[in-house]
Amino acid sequence: MAQEFREESDSFGPLKVPADKYYGAMTLRSFNNFDIGGHRERMPIEVVHALAILKRACATVNKDFGLDPVIAENIIKAADEVIDGKLDEHFPLVVWQTGSGTQTNMNVNEVISNRAIEMMGGKLGAKSPVHPNDHVNKGQSSNDTFPTALHIAVALEIQQRLLPSMKLLHDSLAAKRAEFDSIVKIGRTHMMDATPLTLGQEFSGYVQQMSNGMDRITATLPRVYMLAAGGTAVGTGLNTTEGFDKLVAGEIAKYTGLPFVTSPCKFESLACRDAMVEVSGALNVIACSLMKIANDIRLLGSGPRCGLGELSLPENEPGSSIMPGKVNPTQCEALTMIAAQVMGNNVAVSVGGSNGHFELNVFAPMILRNVMQSIRLIADGCRSFTMNCVSGITPNKERINTLLNDSLMLVTALNPHIGYDQAAKIAKFAHKNNISLKEAAVKLDILTFEKFDALVKPEDMTHPKPK
Amino acid sequence: MAQEFREESDSFGPLKVPADKYYGAMTLRSFNNFDIGGHRERMPIEVVHALAILKRACATVNKDFGLDPVIAENIIKAADEVIDGKLDEHFPLVVWQTGSGTQTNMNVNEVISNRAIEMMGGKLGAKSPVHPNDHVNKGQSSNDTFPTALHIAVALEIQQRLLPSMKLLHDSLAAKRAEFDSIVKIGRTHMMDATPLTLGQEFSGYVQQMSNGMDRITATLPRVYMLAAGGTAVGTGLNTTEGFDKLVAGEIAKYTGLPFVTSPCKFESLACRDAMVEVSGALNVIACSLMKIANDIRLLGSGPRCGLGELSLPENEPGSSIMPGKVNPTQCEALTMIAAQVMGNNVAVSVGGSNGHFELNVFAPMILRNVMQSIRLIADGCRSFTMNCVSGITPNKERINTLLNDSLMLVTALNPHIGYDQAAKIAKFAHKNNISLKEAAVKLDILTFEKFDALVKPEDMTHPKPK
Amino acid sequence: MAQEFREESDSFGPLKVPADKYYGAMTLRSFNNFDIGGHRERMPIEVVHALAILKRACATVNKDFGLDPVIAENIIKAADEVIDGKLDEHFPLVVWQTGSGTQTNMNVNEVISNRAIEMMGGKLGAKSPVHPNDHVNKGQSSNDTFPTALHIAVALEIQQRLLPSMKLLHDSLAAKRAEFDSIVKIGRTHMMDATPLTLGQEFSGYVQQMSNGMDRITATLPRVYMLAAGGTAVGTGLNTTEGFDKLVAGEIAKYTGLPFVTSPCKFESLACRDAMVEVSGALNVIACSLMKIANDIRLLGSGPRCGLGELSLPENEPGSSIMPGKVNPTQCEALTMIAAQVMGNNVAVSVGGSNGHFELNVFAPMILRNVMQSIRLIADGCRSFTMNCVSGITPNKERINTLLNDSLMLVTALNPHIGYDQAAKIAKFAHKNNISLKEAAVKLDILTFEKFDALVKPEDMTHPKPK
Amino acid sequence: MAQEFREESDSFGPLKVPADKYYGAMTLRSFNNFDIGGHRERMPIEVVHALAILKRACATVNKDFGLDPVIAENIIKAADEVIDGKLDEHFPLVVWQTGSGTQTNMNVNEVISNRAIEMMGGKLGAKSPVHPNDHVNKGQSSNDTFPTALHIAVALEIQQRLLPSMKLLHDSLAAKRAEFDSIVKIGRTHMMDATPLTLGQEFSGYVQQMSNGMDRITATLPRVYMLAAGGTAVGTGLNTTEGFDKLVAGEIAKYTGLPFVTSPCKFESLACRDAMVEVSGALNVIACSLMKIANDIRLLGSGPRCGLGELSLPENEPGSSIMPGKVNPTQCEALTMIAAQVMGNNVAVSVGGSNGHFELNVFAPMILRNVMQSIRLIADGCRSFTMNCVSGITPNKERINTLLNDSLMLVTALNPHIGYDQAAKIAKFAHKNNISLKEAAVKLDILTFEKFDALVKPEDMTHPKPK
Repeated sequence: MAQEFREESDSFGPLKVPADKYYGAMTLRSFNNFDIGGHRERMPIEVVHALAILKRACATVNKDFGLDPVIAENIIKAADEVIDGKLDEHFPLVVWQTGSGTQTNMNVNEVISNRAIEMMGGKLGAKSPVHPNDHVNKGQSSNDTFPTALHIAVALEIQQRLLPSMKLLHDSLAAKRAEFDSIVKIGRTHMMDATPLTLGQEFSGYVQQMSNGMDRITATLPRVYMLAAGGTAVGTGLNTTEGFDKLVAGEIAKYTGLPFVTSPCKFESLACRDAMVEVSGALNVIACSLMKIANDIRLLGSGPRCGLGELSLPENEPGSSIMPGKVNPTQCEALTMIAAQVMGNNVAVSVGGSNGHFELNVFAPMILRNVMQSIRLIADGCRSFTMNCVSGITPNKERINTLLNDSLMLVTALNPHIGYDQAAKIAKFAHKNNISLKEAAVKLDILTFEKFDALVKPEDMTHPKPK
Repeated sequence: MAQEFREESDSFGPLKVPADKYYGAMTLRSFNNFDIGGHRERMPIEVVHALAILKRACATVNKDFGLDPVIAENIIKAADEVIDGKLDEHFPLVVWQTGSGTQTNMNVNEVISNRAIEMMGGKLGAKSPVHPNDHVNKGQSSNDTFPTALHIAVALEIQQRLLPSMKLLHDSLAAKRAEFDSIVKIGRTHMMDATPLTLGQEFSGYVQQMSNGMDRITATLPRVYMLAAGGTAVGTGLNTTEGFDKLVAGEIAKYTGLPFVTSPCKFESLACRDAMVEVSGALNVIACSLMKIANDIRLLGSGPRCGLGELSLPENEPGSSIMPGKVNPTQCEALTMIAAQVMGNNVAVSVGGSNGHFELNVFAPMILRNVMQSIRLIADGCRSFTMNCVSGITPNKERINTLLNDSLMLVTALNPHIGYDQAAKIAKFAHKNNISLKEAAVKLDILTFEKFDALVKPEDMTHPKPK
Repeated sequence: MAQEFREESDSFGPLKVPADKYYGAMTLRSFNNFDIGGHRERMPIEVVHALAILKRACATVNKDFGLDPVIAENIIKAADEVIDGKLDEHFPLVVWQTGSGTQTNMNVNEVISNRAIEMMGGKLGAKSPVHPNDHVNKGQSSNDTFPTALHIAVALEIQQRLLPSMKLLHDSLAAKRAEFDSIVKIGRTHMMDATPLTLGQEFSGYVQQMSNGMDRITATLPRVYMLAAGGTAVGTGLNTTEGFDKLVAGEIAKYTGLPFVTSPCKFESLACRDAMVEVSGALNVIACSLMKIANDIRLLGSGPRCGLGELSLPENEPGSSIMPGKVNPTQCEALTMIAAQVMGNNVAVSVGGSNGHFELNVFAPMILRNVMQSIRLIADGCRSFTMNCVSGITPNKERINTLLNDSLMLVTALNPHIGYDQAAKIAKFAHKNNISLKEAAVKLDILTFEKFDALVKPEDMTHPKPK
Repeated sequence: MAQEFREESDSFGPLKVPADKYYGAMTLRSFNNFDIGGHRERMPIEVVHALAILKRACATVNKDFGLDPVIAENIIKAADEVIDGKLDEHFPLVVWQTGSGTQTNMNVNEVISNRAIEMMGGKLGAKSPVHPNDHVNKGQSSNDTFPTALHIAVALEIQQRLLPSMKLLHDSLAAKRAEFDSIVKIGRTHMMDATPLTLGQEFSGYVQQMSNGMDRITATLPRVYMLAAGGTAVGTGLNTTEGFDKLVAGEIAKYTGLPFVTSPCKFESLACRDAMVEVSGALNVIACSLMKIANDIRLLGSGPRCGLGELSLPENEPGSSIMPGKVNPTQCEALTMIAAQVMGNNVAVSVGGSNGHFELNVFAPMILRNVMQSIRLIADGCRSFTMNCVSGITPNKERINTLLNDSLMLVTALNPHIGYDQAAKIAKFAHKNNISLKEAAVKLDILTFEKFDALVKPEDMTHPKPK
């Protein structure tokens, strides 16, 4: 079955576009000129949806600034279809295109104009009654629309996907913290035996990391909520009317329910992707936190017989194609791989962010892709890690207890009573002779059995001395 | 239409798998347990194909070590279908799974065993007459197969995709170098006017960078050609017979036409992904080179009227949704975005590579994904940049000439004759009074017009003085 | 002259230490065991001073918890000498030591105890009447003191060095913004000519970046102000008394004048350096901003005759050892090198931050070193860039005006009147025939000269149309 | 005591320089204009020495091209003093200066010319009979000298410092590999118990990593040996005579004993720091290797009672200021901190390397600083780690044996005999009921005691089955 085509044109001339697609000449030109990476490298669809949210808002506002209301209404209807994901197949472009995202903005302009034309009974590609530039893109430039869409898409992903998943993991860790609160265990510093703490206290560190992580990402949002829309080509607002910027931001805020505002400096908003470097930096901290948490959990769960073995992790699937019965901490592994990816993405974003010039940063699609991937991976990773690992962790109390009582670092409790130097003598003697601390203390004539027992109580070592 | 299912089981028990898929219980378990990132995040299909190349080689060798020849033949036939891409839809797993790639190895084992069973008239999921572990995975562990497949996939991509594309760009730049060899132009250091060189000389730097880049990536290959196969679970070769490793590497070399050998130290080959960090490092250098080249070209092509304007780049598509007639260096932008991505990927790979423990590195799928993406983006990017930009670059000779003759740095030719300090005086005087060097030299009574003309010849400044 | 020694001992036995140094056996042991990098790699002295601030605070509080007041007073006096920098030569250790900073903490304990002993008339090395562990380190562990000192040092550097320097640059840019506000110039996007803006508007982007940067670093401070002190060995507060942590944080807050508080979760504060990854991330954003600003300024100042030439930068020194009269944007170069360093440091910090295990992160000295270097370089870099470059920038009005009037992108002003497609036709015709837009518009019979002049006014293109 | 001054001048005019210093006006100007980071941030002295090696070579060659032989001889004598480190105090400049290193090149020119003038009985600052530019810098530009010196300094550091230290660590690990060759122990993959290997085999992976690392760094040297000298200002060789470049490279090769050659493309050698990005990338791989080795060793040495405890590491110093008797793997910690730093430095180098423009990369001092620091830290770190850790590692044979015999993964030996599925059943049954594999095999009626003992022999699991 032969594919059918229609002719569309842009300022470069006419081109045959597939008859069953709403996109036009500029989209096709980009598709042909940037054969890079294939399907896997498509522009994240979320930014297409966000552009449609912006087009919707502009059409609404443009009615007050002279746009024909019928055209405006049909732009809004077409934009709604884009937002709802009904036209996703009409956005074939990859990330690796012009660094302004112009071609994706034009892709959206073309799809909306053609769909609106269709709804109004016109002919696809006619650019009339709805012109992609003059009507759909009215009061806009790719230079302000793409950054605006980028901010919308990122803010929505953070609010709808990232923070809820982080909260899920936070709460699951907090539940474990409470559940494990009375289990006294050996602490470890430098990978070496240290003084005791409770398993709940150990988990409280993870809870705090997640809580701080949510604070960190939230602290970046004020600058994500600042929208470039209204800056047009270079930030001056050329071809808009005073007030257009604020009204558009207001429409977007209303539509999304998020507190978007117009940027206080459009020049910064076009030329710099600093806000994205900042978001990526916060994601990078969260990645470091997740790496720590996942590493701890897999180390504590290592074994089953030749590792630390303090925790049992849920057994989700066979772990080996050759070792029968092997089960691995696979959720920890997925999460730490994600952490590494996010750390790498942060560098890509930073390199892009540092290389803006004059009135525009032309690394925007790459920056977008990395921030969106980092958010998605952390969000999905946290959820998967919670459901398939953390929520099912159980302590191996017997093992925990054995290790606790073997430890030489209980000697630290003696410091206030016999001084650091004497205490060190006991620990070293016990270690050298492979005997218990108590035996060592007595053999060295430093303490009696009774005195030792009175002074060294692991459970008392998990908190300051009461006043 | 309701989806149909059949029951399959692994050591964790039975599971309903889609009836129209060749994969089995372990694949499905992974699919369910790692709902991370969706379709976009699928394991690169190239590593699946490479695993099938390995399965093929092992089946061939295993015939000599006791595997039923009929089973072996059917494994080979099924593997061939995987290699040919006929079964791609049966590999649904994402990158973010177990860090050993076990689940993708089992996915391949399951698909090949089921397809082989089918070809032999058996029942899908019966694990007989072809068992995914005992037959398809015979003499193998995920711990050696996944690294082996990773090396195969990366080597093939480098040879078949990366080097040819880099060569294409290299040759296109070299053609321009030759074409531009007699065009004398102003040099620029620190972004400031400097002494002249030819446009061909300027391009010769890019040619050398590409040439060095090919040398760099090639220099990493000896360690990429070392295969882990035969190491099985921890590198010891448990459950293989002496010589298995060499024979398998030999089969793979024969099949691919690349000089693969068995690794001299399987322990290193399982536990470390250093060879991939090395490849990624070479890709990182190439990314830096491409960033330089693309930046230069877009700066030299800046304008058309208010920039440097020495080059005209091909005009490929409208550049702006608001500025009519604007054309942008979009190929340069795609390429520099790619460079930034590769630089970020290199950090992700390094973080993963540094975090192996004991007998296995469990960041392998993430490392694979990044190296493969970097290769693909550089390869496609070089090709696109060559075809859509470099090959169509033309010099603006008039502009080049005007700038050359305006430059104050021609004064440098006077150093050997009047000394640095006198020459500086001329340049500063000309600059301050906005006059030509020649006028300045004469006004300062340092040289006559004739002497100046005899000493300052831009074309003579582009090479050492003949002996 | 032979160096003299005295004998000191730690739990490993006696050692000869230089008689003229206050440090003791543990310091010397570290000095000998870590011969890495030499003098250049010494632990930043600021963290030594911060440790002394902490020792001072603990001694003050410990008086209420049983420490002999005379000992306490002498610890405080000795600590004051450390804080004042009088004893800097007694801290010879390098960054590349134990990852907890224990050896630097012990260095401080040893120097303070010996100096206090000396002031009390005792014998150096006697550990009496002031013991380094039992008295100076009372209620402390390296595991909480080093992170505490790290937070103190970083907070002080941010407040006293970084923010004032950033403010200086911000204000200098803001002054230029105001000074340049009426200079209309060509805008550039994608390095290509775009619609006009004022030079003041261009600088307003830089001002906003600096302002955002200060907000970004300030947003990290709440977590920097949380102090680990009181957590002791593993976070439990073993060997302290209830309330010790709050009192110590209070003393430090009082002494420094900064709002330090005791950490809400000591386990997080010992095990994680997330707050430092966060600070480093904010510094990374600032680095990206500075790279953008410095790049723009050197590009705008490129020339003097063959570049963009819109700005003149201060001429500070001869730029070349061979090209007489050459002057370069050296301050921009120093600043962009600093930006690259900070971006790299951020990765080092992130790798360290991600690799904490259990109750302690053992990458603390490396993290400290990088954060402190990044702060110092940005601070000094901003100051140098302000004083030696920004404050002396002058616009080349004639050049700016020439370029503005040549630009084809003034055509954008016609969009609302004749539509994007007609406007594109004019621009392309002018470009192709190397004529002015006005001539093209008239030749194409689209507009009259008068109409063109009425519609295209560069100064009107720098702001939205009034309502 | 008042400091005395003399007057010197450059093309910017006269300046008072300290009377006791050989440097002149340009150095002082840079010192004043770049007050960034203080003493810690001084340009690595090795590049100063390398510049003197180059000055020496140029003076030698310049004699053949017309330089007064007496002047040449005195330049050589003064250069020798610089090379010998006798004049180090006369090089006060920091890294954060002009990105070409011009100021450090001029610092060397000024010191050598003044010292030569002094030796010839002239007056400091007179620029006669030896002029810093016309004589010392003859046939040179900072743009070719600084890159040349950078390559010399890096090559020397690699050859004299890095490779010997890596070899030391390699050999120490190899000695341990041999020593541990008959100790059978449990393997670990995914942190979980796996099949056995020998401790020697485990160490063989580290040996291979170090060996590969030396190959990797060596593979970069061909491009480090290519020298820019002779390219002068922009690569054309202006103000040199044909053959000068080859002769200078030859002199340097002779003097250093390393196979330096003149670069095949001076344009690349000035404009790109790709060779340094490549070296840094190789250092990055080595850093990843060292991180793996150090992590393994500290994990295997974790305990002494509550960790894995398979190795005992040398006890070098007290590990804690609060926990008596604690000893930590501090050498591992220093080495992993170094690894993190090198990984970060690699990003700084890459950012700098990617940002060259036109005929010159102006991130050279920053790139130099990072590469030199990475080399030095790895070299010193490897040496310290070898001497203070690896060489003293001892195995805890009893502990190793206990763990080996407990492991469930010995079951893998049964695969070829009873199949993966039956073997999995045994392992899972043993795990669930906390009994030995043998007991489980018998209870499940799969094998007899005798048969089990015949099939499961850990020592036989450490190699392939003999043919």
